[in-house]
Amino acid sequence: MTSGNRDVTPRKVDAPRRRFLVAAAVGAGALAGRAARAGEASPPNDAPWSQMLGPGVVDRPYGQPSDFVKDVIRRNVPWLTATPESSVSFTPLQDQSGIITPNGLFFERYHAGRAEVDPAQHKLMIHGLVERSLLLTMEDIKRFPSVSRIHFIECPANGGMEWRAAQLNSLQFTHGMVSCAEWTGVKLSTLLGEVGLKTDARWALVEGADAAHLARSLPVEKLLDDCIVAYGQNGEALRPEQGFPLRLIVPGWQGNVHIKWLRRIQIGDRPWFTREETSKYTELMADGSVRGFTWLIYAKSVITFPCPEKPLKEPGLYEVRGLAWCGKGRIAHVDVSADGGVNWLRARLEEPVLPKALTRFTHEWRWDGKPALLQSRAVDETGFVQPTIAQLRAARGVNGVYNNNSIQTWQVKPDGSVFDVQLA
Amino acid sequence: MTSGNRDVTPRKVDAPRRRFLVAAAVGAGALAGRAARAGEASPPNDAPWSQMLGPGVVDRPYGQPSDFVKDVIRRNVPWLTATPESSVSFTPLQDQSGIITPNGLFFERYHAGRAEVDPAQHKLMIHGLVERSLLLTMEDIKRFPSVSRIHFIECPANGGMEWRAAQLNSLQFTHGMVSCAEWTGVKLSTLLGEVGLKTDARWALVEGADAAHLARSLPVEKLLDDCIVAYGQNGEALRPEQGFPLRLIVPGWQGNVHIKWLRRIQIGDRPWFTREETSKYTELMADGSVRGFTWLIYAKSVITFPCPEKPLKEPGLYEVRGLAWCGKGRIAHVDVSADGGVNWLRARLEEPVLPKALTRFTHEWRWDGKPALLQSRAVDETGFVQPTIAQLRAARGVNGVYNNNSIQTWQVKPDGSVFDVQLA
Repeated sequence: MTSGNRDVTPRKVDAPRRRFLVAAAVGAGALAGRAARAGEASPPNDAPWSQMLGPGVVDRPYGQPSDFVKDVIRRNVPWLTATPESSVSFTPLQDQSGIITPNGLFFERYHAGRAEVDPAQHKLMIHGLVERSLLLTMEDIKRFPSVSRIHFIECPANGGMEWRAAQLNSLQFTHGMVSCAEWTGVKLSTLLGEVGLKTDARWALVEGADAAHLARSLPVEKLLDDCIVAYGQNGEALRPEQGFPLRLIVPGWQGNVHIKWLRRIQIGDRPWFTREETSKYTELMADGSVRGFTWLIYAKSVITFPCPEKPLKEPGLYEVRGLAWCGKGRIAHVDVSADGGVNWLRARLEEPVLPKALTRFTHEWRWDGKPALLQSRAVDETGFVQPTIAQLRAARGVNGVYNNNSIQTWQVKPDGSVFDVQLA
Repeated sequence: MTSGNRDVTPRKVDAPRRRFLVAAAVGAGALAGRAARAGEASPPNDAPWSQMLGPGVVDRPYGQPSDFVKDVIRRNVPWLTATPESSVSFTPLQDQSGIITPNGLFFERYHAGRAEVDPAQHKLMIHGLVERSLLLTMEDIKRFPSVSRIHFIECPANGGMEWRAAQLNSLQFTHGMVSCAEWTGVKLSTLLGEVGLKTDARWALVEGADAAHLARSLPVEKLLDDCIVAYGQNGEALRPEQGFPLRLIVPGWQGNVHIKWLRRIQIGDRPWFTREETSKYTELMADGSVRGFTWLIYAKSVITFPCPEKPLKEPGLYEVRGLAWCGKGRIAHVDVSADGGVNWLRARLEEPVLPKALTRFTHEWRWDGKPALLQSRAVDETGFVQPTIAQLRAARGVNGVYNNNSIQTWQVKPDGSVFDVQLA
């Protein structure tokens, strides 16, 4: 039943691919390493970790990253907001290796700091235009049928500094207000089935338990579609930064509606026009009108290697890497340009390509050592094409600051350094 | 381009489902919470976190779980091994909410403790029956084309204490030597294409840089199929516990061949019969013969709720939850029994169902308060059915201790407590 697979038939390695890597393209010196000495039996064996015992198990019952990567952390921009309790920290996307953002690096956004909520005292109230109001404990909520889904969350201010042409020259600060996790919890449709919606139920107010009591209006249709009342994040309890013990997940919609420390859902027949949907999170158009309730995250992408934090070392073949996401569903494809958008080539998408989740793309590119303008352009499954920043400015004017999903340009200089530039 | 979706048409909540939850089945008192007071505008607002600012951003640049879940940690069994430097710690599966195991809780298994390797000094040598030996730095390795894959890793000793009928009464200790992560790195086929295999290349010795120099023989066919030389784990650098800066991922095969701190791959024409594949990681059969190279993890599953650590509170409707996995590919389906395997019902699989990854299943079950024997049984896409422990013992005898993939039985007692039992 568990006998090994000993009867193996090796196959020859694919020769064309090998030629592509060794002969045709790859800078042999840098990529291939040095040839091992003839007859050498093993690599140098004099490192301390090859000579002596390390710490045993449960030396750290909850593990930590290596000290050698201690600079891979969330960072903030002190001048961006008046106080750190109403501010944002950015995920180091330049070091993110896949589509899952580890919980320790998931971006933060607070309106009144990080609430440290006791789950034994936390309750969720659902009331308003319902047949039967409810006040649920965490224990109640965990007893309902559960789902797990991998979804990104992005703050609509992601790219806002870029929109205002702030010179930070950093992937972490241009795009680091997006992260992605596996969320586990109860479908909101299950809870709304429990309370019973009245026939005039159209909108819901969702409210957090932190001191800001952040509150947003959402259409009931979205709540019934795919929203999740989540208590799990990447296999463990939600992090306090993400709303422990309970957060609303509104897949594909802007971050501030994913209410953290969720304590109340009120059902009504019209939107509430709360502070966060009048004075904040609206877009002032060129003609002076205001656009509100712009929840949906449109197709967006960014190249994460190379980037300002991760320059090129020398001419040669590289794998350009990046992330793409969209609120409408799946990413259909991503194209990469090395000449500022004149010519485009199709990138490879890494599986799994999940709806409303980060999608990783890669593209092999030979850098000849000349100046280059690297761009990526995402297209979602509805055919929506990520716009240039010029197209976006023409459509909206420059008053607004939210929902900058424009194509990012990285300028590669002859010395391999990478700069954040905006094309006219 | 980014206008909101304001024109929404709410639909009525699905009535049959609501009846199922409220009227037909769910213990209303426990599941539904208490009805909110008429006219109540919000939940109690006197908690400290609703009254004052919390810490601001980058208070913890690398985040930590809430103090309220500080007991959710890896644990070990001190008597299991002679020293903690050659031991194992177990993932708290009773608290795992999805298929991703957070890096801080990924199970540990050391042969010489946790090596703290400097990535700037680490090298990977590939030599033996190759056209061109190579010694690669981490920088070299990261320049090759990369892939990301979600895969489980399980130690073949997982379930070994159960096999020997140790009385621990704990999901964490019966099944916690399995974890799952998104791994990012270079396909080994890419590196083997780079060195060029000679025609008699059949086997590879893979070796770690820790003081144990753990070494295993693997067929070249498997290396060319789907193995990954990984440097990323759940979006960040590998954890030291998992082999930072470089680990071999051998999807679907037992944990000890996923060599940590990978420093050497030697290509040959026959297996090496190293210490770990002669004195260890073999199975002594009833007739005294020894089975070696039993790498493949066969279909397995376990119910994670309820379990000894998570008892039932009272009779009523519950969602039974669990995890399934197999080394051959995807899980096809999982069945759940409440009567010790006499009757089975099909569970629901949570998306995404990925090959050689943990797969989550759920099953709604009404507990009538009487004694019950809960079991889950996984079937993989090849039709392989997870065996009972009696079937496994009949096939193998009881000398061995590895690769116990048998059906787990949880006995539910009338008071709701859950016990680990073995059926005759």
